[in-house]
Amino acid sequence: MKNEKKEQIWAFHNEIPAEQMPTWKSRRIKAYGDGMMLVENEFASGETAADHSHPHTQIMYIIEGKIETTVDGETRILGAGDAVYVRPDTVHGLRALEETRMLDIFSPMREDFLA
Amino acid sequence: MKNEKKEQIWAFHNEIPAEQMPTWKSRRIKAYGDGMMLVENEFASGETAADHSHPHTQIMYIIEGKIETTVDGETRILGAGDAVYVRPDTVHGLRALEETRMLDIFSPMREDFLA
Repeated sequence: MKNEKKEQIWAFHNEIPAEQMPTWKSRRIKAYGDGMMLVENEFASGETAADHSHPHTQIMYIIEGKIETTVDGETRILGAGDAVYVRPDTVHGLRALEETRMLDIFSPMREDFLA
Repeated sequence: MKNEKKEQIWAFHNEIPAEQMPTWKSRRIKAYGDGMMLVENEFASGETAADHSHPHTQIMYIIEGKIETTVDGETRILGAGDAVYVRPDTVHGLRALEETRMLDIFSPMREDFLA
């Protein structure tokens, strides 16, 4: 159920399966190579991603909707067009305040997402 | 006029200056560290980014609108939610078919954008 084609050039939204996540609506792995991975997530209002950390650098980007996110102990509300840079091994989590679509970009790629 | 704060955690759209580009409407450097950089572009319908290449890996992601893009000699039309993975040193360019907002994500970061 994953888009496991490393360095595949074209990624059309409708051709990429949505994985249902334990605490949020869906995740789609859109594109990746060794150096980075682009993932799109959909949250229903009130859904959460629990606090966690990983050695990968991460950028979050809000496409539409609104989230409350905590990064390294600081909490902010983000809307469409806002972004967050999460340094390696930094605790972060979020709660959707509305129906939200957002991107997670990881560097290097999340090998664990393809396991 | 650039968001030159490396590894800055919070990036609010309204606080980031838009740079007018030679052949398209605007570019905003949203977030970056050594390993990656997130850039948001706005194109008016008909505007273009000429064919070019660079040693950085790049992922393009369409937030809204529609583009025709050519990557390594192959041309496709992309809309909201579609993405493209551009390998290093691969020629790519695009033409907006509608008013379009899209993201460019680079790995490693584009030092040249901050020059």
